[in-house]
Formats: sequence, structure tokens, C-alpha cells
Amino acid sequence: MTRFEPSLERIRRDILKFAEFTSSREEGHTRISFSREDKDARAHVSGLMEEARLAVSIDAAGNIIGRRRGRDAKPGILAGSHLDTVREGGRFDGIAGVVAAIETARRFEELGVENVHPIEVVVFLAEEPSPFGLSFIGSRSMAGKLSRDQITTLRDDTGRFLAEAIAEMGGDPPNIGRARRSPDDILAYLELHIEQGPHLNRSCTRIGAVTGIVGTWRASIEVIGRNDHAGTTPMALRKDALAAASEAVLAVERVCRSFEGVVGTVSRVEVSPNALNVIPGRVTMGMEIRSLHGDVADRVHAALRAELCHIMDERGVTIAFELWKSSEPVLFSANMVRRIRHICDQLGVSCSELPSGAGHDANHLAEIAPTGMIFVPSRDGRSHCPEEWSEFEDIALGTEVLAQLIYKIDAGIST
Amino acid sequence: MTRFEPSLERIRRDILKFAEFTSSREEGHTRISFSREDKDARAHVSGLMEEARLAVSIDAAGNIIGRRRGRDAKPGILAGSHLDTVREGGRFDGIAGVVAAIETARRFEELGVENVHPIEVVVFLAEEPSPFGLSFIGSRSMAGKLSRDQITTLRDDTGRFLAEAIAEMGGDPPNIGRARRSPDDILAYLELHIEQGPHLNRSCTRIGAVTGIVGTWRASIEVIGRNDHAGTTPMALRKDALAAASEAVLAVERVCRSFEGVVGTVSRVEVSPNALNVIPGRVTMGMEIRSLHGDVADRVHAALRAELCHIMDERGVTIAFELWKSSEPVLFSANMVRRIRHICDQLGVSCSELPSGAGHDANHLAEIAPTGMIFVPSRDGRSHCPEEWSEFEDIALGTEVLAQLIYKIDAGIST
Repeated sequence: MTRFEPSLERIRRDILKFAEFTSSREEGHTRISFSREDKDARAHVSGLMEEARLAVSIDAAGNIIGRRRGRDAKPGILAGSHLDTVREGGRFDGIAGVVAAIETARRFEELGVENVHPIEVVVFLAEEPSPFGLSFIGSRSMAGKLSRDQITTLRDDTGRFLAEAIAEMGGDPPNIGRARRSPDDILAYLELHIEQGPHLNRSCTRIGAVTGIVGTWRASIEVIGRNDHAGTTPMALRKDALAAASEAVLAVERVCRSFEGVVGTVSRVEVSPNALNVIPGRVTMGMEIRSLHGDVADRVHAALRAELCHIMDERGVTIAFELWKSSEPVLFSANMVRRIRHICDQLGVSCSELPSGAGHDANHLAEIAPTGMIFVPSRDGRSHCPEEWSEFEDIALGTEVLAQLIYKIDAGIST
Repeated sequence: MTRFEPSLERIRRDILKFAEFTSSREEGHTRISFSREDKDARAHVSGLMEEARLAVSIDAAGNIIGRRRGRDAKPGILAGSHLDTVREGGRFDGIAGVVAAIETARRFEELGVENVHPIEVVVFLAEEPSPFGLSFIGSRSMAGKLSRDQITTLRDDTGRFLAEAIAEMGGDPPNIGRARRSPDDILAYLELHIEQGPHLNRSCTRIGAVTGIVGTWRASIEVIGRNDHAGTTPMALRKDALAAASEAVLAVERVCRSFEGVVGTVSRVEVSPNALNVIPGRVTMGMEIRSLHGDVADRVHAALRAELCHIMDERGVTIAFELWKSSEPVLFSANMVRRIRHICDQLGVSCSELPSGAGHDANHLAEIAPTGMIFVPSRDGRSHCPEEWSEFEDIALGTEVLAQLIYKIDAGIST
């Protein structure tokens, strides 16, 4: 088989260069979408694309697309990720996928690969939570799910409309609909990403073949007890909303531990009146459950409801539990998973199938194209923090897998 | 024995009248110290004192004192309470004791009691938490524990100094030291108050002979875990600070339930980062323990430390537990407790000995005078809320006990 042998040095250089486009006013690496730093990183990525002889354009939604011409005009093979970060984030989330796609294009150019289909390196606009309260702005638009109405309604805290911000990034907001891509137009969407979790790192596996992206169910739990005087009310006569809420937190943990392939987290808590000498009368909590399988999530919810009922009975408090689906689970193409495993076998490197616990631009692309994601290990599973780290060797290996995958899909090689 | 037969009608009228001096901008009954409403209530109480033929003065700390002359010039018998409330408080806390003391003076006048010692009805300034971050301002001053330095340093959120505010209430801040009373000067301090807890109400007991005021130990509990991604981190690999904190809340409850005469409450919680998709990495909590007995509190703390250690071990989190004594337990004069019980026996009414779980002006007066407190039942134990209620009949009965107590102490009758 052909080896593409991506350049470890260029990958290291590019990733560390992007880390320089970081706000000096924040800890860690902060490059919020639409910021000065984001614009600088976008200018830099355009330059890298041009050096790789890609034809650079910006679509109506502000996505940067670097196109390598193919023998046919369409459908294209898309590969990419994003440049923006969360506040106090790391150097690899998004960047690794952008650099891997550009390095693949560079190697195709250097090796004189004559691809049949156009190859499009895509840098999606605003994948992380943006100042407009919306994430996945670029990939949503490409899937046709962001309307002109929405972008002329959403504002950031300076009062600027999203449409204005997209125009500043080189997009064409009045024609946002033109960013939509038809399924006929895309042969595959492929994304390399850091895992952002500990599975690969802990099992010493170098490549993850991503089976899908877990769905997220969010819930609010409101516990109503009675706010009595903390000094005068005997222990036996209390309706302490915080004690009941604490049992609920532990119930979420216990129930989620008892199922395979589920995580659940209570992450937000508000205690009322939150005053030193008053027994808490009300606690409101925000939680979420994630699973690739809707039926498992349903069983977790049922078990949790039973636990909350029991706490109500025991403590004489009221607990309101409101649940909604925040995002559907997304199952990736089984063909892509099989292809990634097969390439790893041929390369003689370890590969695990695993779902992604975090959302990606691939969530939206999967609606319009067969989608595959390649994970590389995250040290200690850390992400969205300054300590986020992946080995450049692993990213280079992932880039080899990405290049093989693009090459084989392009050439119609099924194994 | 003499019966003083206090007037139920006057007690009802006075209490309901004070409830009219309430901020219209707040729910419930709000009469924060130093406010317009507090000033109006103080003007009204001065009028009531004058009608009762008490000689009204304001001491250097702003306490209002209504003096009934005795055969001797001193020592005096002091009885009183306060007029200010917490935010969204009730109609009885403090007011009941002021009205009972005034009604006692009225009945002494009407019955022509020729008391040996001066009887002083005291309305203490600012018993509840004040805008200056300090409570018990009047009673502290009377015990000589508020210095000129302090009152010229403490400010409210408008920038006003406490000294200015005391001057506005008719006090004499430059001479605040003159508010200090010598132990030679006070034969006894007596206070009727609503229980603010459920003991008397639940046991159908009409009078409480208060044995003392519990001490308060405050603590902060800081749990440090690790803030990982809520979607990508498997349950088994988490260091969830909120789950650990929940176990700590339940440990506080369990330990305090296992000891007699102790209450403990975790009432303040701050979760960080408190963001929906991040496992909480840090939780800071505020808690308190109250007991009349320092040695019991020590044993509670030791048991709690052991539980927190266990949580640290089990979960691999760090827990910092910092404890400080916020107020010493105060034991009231056993003689006063015995006298109150005896009066109740003579009147043929039920009486229980119990500690106060809340602080009172009596905390400070007990340092300079033999002190006794009479509790009347609180409906459902509720207090510091609009639902706070005590039966006027119970307050009238408590006033009878107060009058008997003053009469007997004055006359040197030991039973």
C-alpha cells in the first residue's frame, strides 16, 4: 500500500503556530470565534492552504474552504475541523483536524496524487459556544439549518447581530442559504479530532474509529423543602432541600454507573436562600445524560425518576424533574468505521471503536454526507483546559489514516 | 399569689400596630435597623412608654430605655427586646418581648406596685443583622463590647459610618462607652421572646424556661476534584467535586442526628465552574453547628473530620475543612430557670426547660447580669418569615410570668 508519510515537523510547527493566536487577556489558550485572534488564525490558515496549492474561498456562512481540484467537478470529499476555542482552552481541539487535513493536501500535492474527486479542506466557523449563544455556526449552515431570520435576530452582548459578524469574517449573510451543501455534492465528510476523553490514552490505543456522537438529554431538578432557622429547628423536623438534593446528585451518579455506555453529570447548583443561618428551602440543579443509544438513556431516566420519588417519600420534600432532549445521538457510517479499522490493521497500529462524548461539526455534516471521524489520544483525557495535550506523533499517525481514507474513498477502493 | 393579669387586648393591639411599620417595598414584614420603618417604630414605642408613665431616654448606643422609678436608685431590673426584623420577617420576633415588658410596666402602674428597684424597659438597637454587617449593636454596647473605633470604621453600602447612623437614632456616638452598664448596676436582665423553633408547639407546652443560648461553630468545606468534560469522561474516572460534596452534606446531617442537643446545617454552596457540560472541579460550602455544650460540639467535629477523611480516600478528592467558633454557648442563671419553672407551677401552666437555638440580646446581657429568658410557642416553629406566628394568649401568659418574675426579684422573694 501507498504510505503518505505526513511530516511530523510541519504538523508540530503548524499546531504550535496556531497556539500563538491566543488572547493575551486570558489564561490558557483562548481564541473565541469572531475575535481578533480568530481572524488572525483564519488569515494564517488561508496562507497555509494557498501554500498547499488549494484554491481558497469563503462560503456564505464564513467557512473557509481550500479546494484541490479533481478529475470530476463533484461530488467532493470534505475534511476539516475548526480553529476557535473555548475560554481558557487548549492547543489541539479543532486545530489538530485542520492541520491534518492541510498536511494531507500537501502530501497529495507533493506525491502528485491525481484525485478523481475534488478534495475540500474545510475550516468551520464557530464550532464552540460563540458570543451569539450558538455553536456549530458554520457546520449548521452547511447542513442548511441556519436561516437568514436566525442570523438577523441573534446578537452578542455588544448588540451586534450574528449576520454582521459573519459578514466581517468574509461570509455573505444575505445569501446564507448558499452555504448549504446538497448530499449529491459530498462523497464523504472526514474529521480528525483529539478524543477529549481518556479511553485511548488509558488503553494505549493510538487511533479511535468513532462510531457516532452521543445524544445529550438535559434535565433540571428542583427540590422544594422548607427554609427553617438553622439554629432552632431540630434535625428530625427539617425538610432540608440541600440534603435531599445531595441524595439526588448521588443517585444520578449511582444510576449512571450501573449502565454501560452512559455518563451523567449534575453540574449546576443554585441554593436558596444560600444564607448561613437558614436551612436551604430550595435547590435547583442542572444535569445531563449522554449516550449513543436512546433506549439506554430512557432506562437511565426511568431509574432516576424512581430514585427521586424515593427521596421525596423519605424526606417529605417535593422534587420536580424536567427532562428534554438537547441533541439526538448521531450514528456514523458503519462503512467509515470499518474502513478506518482496516487501514489501521494494514498500518499495524492499534485501533478501538468508540463513540464521541462531545459534539463536533461532524454532528451536522452527518446529516448530509457519509461521515467518519478519526480520534487521536488525549493525555489523561483532558480537554477544554490549558493542559490539553496530544502527542504530535499520534496526530501524524492519524493524518496518515486520514490521507489513506481520502485516497481510498476517492479511488473507490473498498478495503 | 398576686396575679398581674396583663391585657390580652392591649398586647394584641400593640403587636399588630408595630406590624404596620413595615417596608412597602418588601414581602412579609421588613423593618431593617436604621430604616425609616425602624425609626417610625421607635417613635411609636417611645409614645407607649410615656403612656405607661415610664421616663424615656436614649442611651449613647441608641437603645431606648423607659424607666420606672424604684425606691432605691439602683441596681435596676431590665426587661426588653428589639424592634428590628430580618428581611421578609414576621410580626413577633423581638416585638413580643418589647410589648410584654411595656405591658408589665403598665400593670405595675395600674396596680400601684411600689417597686424597690428601678425597672427599665429596654428596646435594643439593631439586634438582627444590620446594614453595617453587625448584629446586637445595642446590647453589645451595653456590655461594653462596641468601641468608638469600630463605629467610626464600619460602613453600610451607602458609605455611611455606623457612628453617623447611631447619631441619627438619637445615640451619642462620641461617648458610646457611656452606654456600658456595670454589673453592680443591674439586678437582672429578663427577656420574653418567641421560641422560633418547634419544641413548645409540638409538645403543647405553653412556657419555655430558657437554659441558655447555644454556641455556634462555623466551618467552610472546600472540595477540590477535577473539572473534566461531562461528555467524554467515563463515570469511573471522574473526580466529581459535587458528588463528593453531596456525601459531605449527608455526613453533616448523619453525624448531627447521632448526637443529642446538636443541630448542624450546610446552608451555602458554590459550585465551580457551574457550567452545564463540565464536571464540577471545586465546591465551596458554608456550614454551622450549634450546641449548648462545647464538648458535644467537639465530638461532632471529630466525627465529621473522620467522615470527610473517608470521602477523600474513597474519591481521590481533596477536602479542606476550616472551623472557627462564631459564638460561645451562653448558660443562663440556673436561679432564673428555677424561678420561671416555679412561677409556672404556681400558675398551673406547663413549662419546659430548653436552650435557645438562636442568638438574642440576652447573649450579651448575660455577661453583665443574671439573665433569664421566657419563651412562648411559635406555630410550627416558623420564624424569620411572614408565616411567623404566636398566639396572643400565649404572649399574655408569658407576660404574666415576666411580671411575676420581675415582682419577685424586686421584692427579694426567692420562690
